[in-house]
Amino acid sequence: MLRDRSTIRVRIRGSSEYDVRFGPLEHLPGGMRDVGLRPGRCLVVTDRNVAPMHGLRLDASLKADGWEPRLLAMPPGEQTKSLAHLSAVYDAALGWGIDRSTPVIALGGGVVGDLAGFAAATLLRGVPLVQVPTTLIAQVDSAIGGKTGINHDAGKNLVGAFHQPKLVWSDPGALATLPEREWASGTAEVVKHALIADPTLFERLEHDMPRFAQREASVVHDVVRAAVQVKAAVVSKDEKENGLRAILNFGHTFGHALEKATGYGVLTHGEAVAIGMRAALYLSRRFSPALDAVRAERLVRTIATPAIPVDLALAELVEAMRSDKKASAGRLRFVLLRRIGEAYVTDEVAPADVDAAWMHALTR
Amino acid sequence: MLRDRSTIRVRIRGSSEYDVRFGPLEHLPGGMRDVGLRPGRCLVVTDRNVAPMHGLRLDASLKADGWEPRLLAMPPGEQTKSLAHLSAVYDAALGWGIDRSTPVIALGGGVVGDLAGFAAATLLRGVPLVQVPTTLIAQVDSAIGGKTGINHDAGKNLVGAFHQPKLVWSDPGALATLPEREWASGTAEVVKHALIADPTLFERLEHDMPRFAQREASVVHDVVRAAVQVKAAVVSKDEKENGLRAILNFGHTFGHALEKATGYGVLTHGEAVAIGMRAALYLSRRFSPALDAVRAERLVRTIATPAIPVDLALAELVEAMRSDKKASAGRLRFVLLRRIGEAYVTDEVAPADVDAAWMHALTR
Repeated sequence: MLRDRSTIRVRIRGSSEYDVRFGPLEHLPGGMRDVGLRPGRCLVVTDRNVAPMHGLRLDASLKADGWEPRLLAMPPGEQTKSLAHLSAVYDAALGWGIDRSTPVIALGGGVVGDLAGFAAATLLRGVPLVQVPTTLIAQVDSAIGGKTGINHDAGKNLVGAFHQPKLVWSDPGALATLPEREWASGTAEVVKHALIADPTLFERLEHDMPRFAQREASVVHDVVRAAVQVKAAVVSKDEKENGLRAILNFGHTFGHALEKATGYGVLTHGEAVAIGMRAALYLSRRFSPALDAVRAERLVRTIATPAIPVDLALAELVEAMRSDKKASAGRLRFVLLRRIGEAYVTDEVAPADVDAAWMHALTR
Repeated sequence: MLRDRSTIRVRIRGSSEYDVRFGPLEHLPGGMRDVGLRPGRCLVVTDRNVAPMHGLRLDASLKADGWEPRLLAMPPGEQTKSLAHLSAVYDAALGWGIDRSTPVIALGGGVVGDLAGFAAATLLRGVPLVQVPTTLIAQVDSAIGGKTGINHDAGKNLVGAFHQPKLVWSDPGALATLPEREWASGTAEVVKHALIADPTLFERLEHDMPRFAQREASVVHDVVRAAVQVKAAVVSKDEKENGLRAILNFGHTFGHALEKATGYGVLTHGEAVAIGMRAALYLSRRFSPALDAVRAERLVRTIATPAIPVDLALAELVEAMRSDKKASAGRLRFVLLRRIGEAYVTDEVAPADVDAAWMHALTR
């Protein structure tokens, strides 16, 4: 899968393949040419935080290469993944008069990537998409694999499509200015990737977490690359979550429920996943006594998470789990670890064990 | 492709394959079992005209087979292909608590099929879709091939997705009660299929158009089957309109422009296509003098079309053509006939010839 130090290839079965490339934003236009996109109009979807930091220099780079970009800066935050904001993207794109060759460039974090990606999936039944993730969580996870979508009153990501990008362009420099809490959120997904599929990355993180947390450039680059490798390998084998891809949801059955039960926006996605991984590790050890859950949990606990409201009822959390879209025919599915670096999916967890796992995760 | 008298198979490259089956609505639950759908909840999307005629008996048949259907009757008409109505389908489905195995059944004409199909494409990133077309145009054209979508202020079908159904179920009996104008609209697509790909169907229509127009059951069944064969064969070779599928747009570059310039709803889609085919035949003969355009046009003219407002400016029509989403990089593409039963695509038509074709088509 490795082509050179700065490229990781994603191969989707029965679909196109594309590269995750690393480099400064200024080199993106060259990357777009490399994948056959020819200068013309392009729609850059970003948010109002990212626009002043990265939007303007991307705009200048695109113009210098002959593109006619239009920048659309959405409000930051999860609320933007709505039908109303999707409609605003449609209006901007269709009112402008795009055609089927007009790319949508998603510049920002997971919210922008999911919204712009879903717009690209559905404008004219699909236009080219370029993901330019500027957060850690987007670079190692959400920008890769083609999941796009918006939220609904009934839950997160309930409306969406699979739409693979033509190119994912990650600028490691963009991570330097990321707020501390967003960094922690992304770190949770990095740790998750290590736990489910990469024992070498796990060991590296055990040693280098302090340097990673201080964003030492060489450590960040190595760790991000390794985490991207895990994501790319998994989605290459299973685009649509019928099998292997489900392991990417390690910690997520608990995490999604926690986000929902605490009210969206109280916890970041990564914080919820970090707490969810503690619960999942507890369950994992019950099924696999040989798992070194203490060591795994020690790494997970290096991720800062806020205190959880103590009045959160277990019944509420379990109910929130049942409404997850991954619940099939009412059965709860969990991703558990057999050992560090090896995950599997099971729907044979007893309700009492789920309760115990919650108790373990929510008490420090 | 033929399996038996009542089944036509559609094979989408790199995707699933599915059947177009013919039979009374009451047998649909059996057909759904045959494609692996297991009774549980299902969402039936229809419109308020179709609901009393066919919705209630479908509802009863589904319940008798163990399904728990929920019927959603939308307002009839093109206005229903909107983001607002799509949102209503999302609310009904997600508020109810569907899961990824819950099928959406589209019961009705093209509007319902496109709207419900797009909802199925995007609910939980894709749920199973069953198309149950009850109009001629939907049975021979829109229900087959996976195109779904809604309209936008900037034009028709500008937002959508490709989402292949698990099954298309056509009840020939449903056509008996179709209003005259909708019958004519569907007949235009039948004639189009004959002209682009089936000289035998063309000859049959030359002889049997009166019996077809009187909806004689055996003629209707044969003609609909033959027209479905054309559509199934074309989309089987080209799902996403990169090549062959474009020939299905014979008459449509003109037709779409006419719909837009006269104001949506003034002409039916089929009426606009019928007039568009006259223009396309005129152009075709300029490039292929051997084409028997007189014979072709005689058949096209058996389709009743209303008079077109005489003050419609050519400039307006040409401008409307340019805004068509199929226009690529500003060039107009036309589907023309080399001979009856053989179509090709070209973007080498001179503007003066386009004007002359419009004049020919708009004057009787």
